Amino acid sequence: MPTIQDIYRARPAVYRHLQPTPLSRYAPLDELLGTEVWVKHENHLPVGAFKVRGGLNLVAGLSEDQKRGGLYTASTGNHGQSIAFAARAEGIAATIVVPENANPGKVAAMRGLGAEVILHGPDFDSAREHAGELARRNGGTFVGPTDDPLIAGVGTYALEILQDLPDVDSIIVPVGAGSGACGCGIVAKAINPDIRIIGCQSAQAPAMQLSWERGEPVEAEMNSFAEGVATRVPFENTQTLMRELLDDFLLVEDDDIRRAVALMIEHTHNLVEEAGAIPLAAALQIRTQLAGRKTVLIASGGNISMDNLRAALGAVPAGT
Amino acid sequence: MPTIQDIYRARPAVYRHLQPTPLSRYAPLDELLGTEVWVKHENHLPVGAFKVRGGLNLVAGLSEDQKRGGLYTASTGNHGQSIAFAARAEGIAATIVVPENANPGKVAAMRGLGAEVILHGPDFDSAREHAGELARRNGGTFVGPTDDPLIAGVGTYALEILQDLPDVDSIIVPVGAGSGACGCGIVAKAINPDIRIIGCQSAQAPAMQLSWERGEPVEAEMNSFAEGVATRVPFENTQTLMRELLDDFLLVEDDDIRRAVALMIEHTHNLVEEAGAIPLAAALQIRTQLAGRKTVLIASGGNISMDNLRAALGAVPAGT
Repeated sequence: MPTIQDIYRARPAVYRHLQPTPLSRYAPLDELLGTEVWVKHENHLPVGAFKVRGGLNLVAGLSEDQKRGGLYTASTGNHGQSIAFAARAEGIAATIVVPENANPGKVAAMRGLGAEVILHGPDFDSAREHAGELARRNGGTFVGPTDDPLIAGVGTYALEILQDLPDVDSIIVPVGAGSGACGCGIVAKAINPDIRIIGCQSAQAPAMQLSWERGEPVEAEMNSFAEGVATRVPFENTQTLMRELLDDFLLVEDDDIRRAVALMIEHTHNLVEEAGAIPLAAALQIRTQLAGRKTVLIASGGNISMDNLRAALGAVPAGT
Repeated sequence: MPTIQDIYRARPAVYRHLQPTPLSRYAPLDELLGTEVWVKHENHLPVGAFKVRGGLNLVAGLSEDQKRGGLYTASTGNHGQSIAFAARAEGIAATIVVPENANPGKVAAMRGLGAEVILHGPDFDSAREHAGELARRNGGTFVGPTDDPLIAGVGTYALEILQDLPDVDSIIVPVGAGSGACGCGIVAKAINPDIRIIGCQSAQAPAMQLSWERGEPVEAEMNSFAEGVATRVPFENTQTLMRELLDDFLLVEDDDIRRAVALMIEHTHNLVEEAGAIPLAAALQIRTQLAGRKTVLIASGGNISMDNLRAALGAVPAGT
């Protein structure tokens, strides 16, 4: 399991290719939530999501043999773009296996970053198996979505938060596979155990939340429109860490996520994907608990589809 | 008139309160324009626009007497927010006069930044006169929207571009009052006169473009929905500079600006205001001229209204 030292060690690899993201305050959000609110703008990163930090750290830790063999992973979204970006930055080949019904826009984005994209099978699990098989067959390295170097890399955003806002009280972080929440929790709890780390996820994709609550792996139906948090099968390593690190784990209805996407646009003029809006929706649920507490919302990424953006704008009245 | 030295001198004041913005490349934009395209993300700045750099530089250059007297300016948008932000950052009082019909959201944003906002008169010109009068009466300092320290401050974004992409060939920059285009031109032409600086503006608000083309001040009707470039009366000092610095100055139809807002969302997942989308629309007009040239589009800001965003999304077909 990664430690805060591992996260400090990840810094040079991460900052070789990107710069710290802004932590910004918006008066209308303060008013909406009745407390001091800061937004961590991971949506400003290359590939538009926090995960790129993890990819850069993972690639930096490869041996020369591993670099020559290339990387193999499965993804339908930000993880694949992150690995493609990091591999290209260091001149390594990357192969991303995606399900046959994958979003063509995301496939194009991964190809645009120089990755070989292979369409295979009906769902993520079969894509993942095929990526593992290809890695073995071709002598490459398989990368899972919650591997330790990824958690250590993404944790660098939490170091930035603690540096910019040392007296933060609460951090609300969306949970997909859990790497972001774990990286954040490792840093915050090591520096100040009183900081409350609050995970959040779509109520229409509750596998990680149910597993966390019950203390054992729970599979759950995945009906959410929210791609970034659409986890059906919980990840064991991040679950173990989250049981230790999260103070709470909230579920948010998809309708409230849509409204939160629109509220983020209206009040911060930032485009966030579904996962990046869940912290605001969760904060609105626990508004009274947050009173008097300096609260950070993790805007984890900005890669929303045009159709989901239209749906989000339709969830709030026109004329605003 | 500011020089590149003035812009270098502005750096400490600017970077005391913000960090350089990313210059990012997106494969789908390269494909769309058929050349290497980079986006300068001024929309990532505090208050969501490049102008904040100018406000910070202006405030840093005030005497102690001027600081005590406070700042007075007129604005309906980003300029006012920029002055309010900079004044608060340095603990100075700011009074912003806005026309009585000003956008309530923008008034709230300026108040949220701690400025005193006074509603006065039917239009920008009467608000501006009133701000000047208040400054005289109260011993404060009046700030015009294109004062030299503002041009020098915003020019720091061009230094960042030249540092990150030394072999840039073309920079396409939206023109409102002209401070951004001038700051950019001063830097680029000093470092490499071969860099083409291309201004752009809404065809429904062509005063600055007509004045530039004819070499004399031309007033023109202002019917554009694009707030950031909605200049009716040309500014003399920026006109003089732009005649020297701009290689071309393009007009873009409002419908094409709307489509460009949607294209920026689809291909970069960034929210830009109308002015911030005009460079992409202009680049599409001169696509063949740009072939083989490294081109930078200035995404000058992100403060689009919800209604204009909806209109922009309506300008492209659904299902993308």
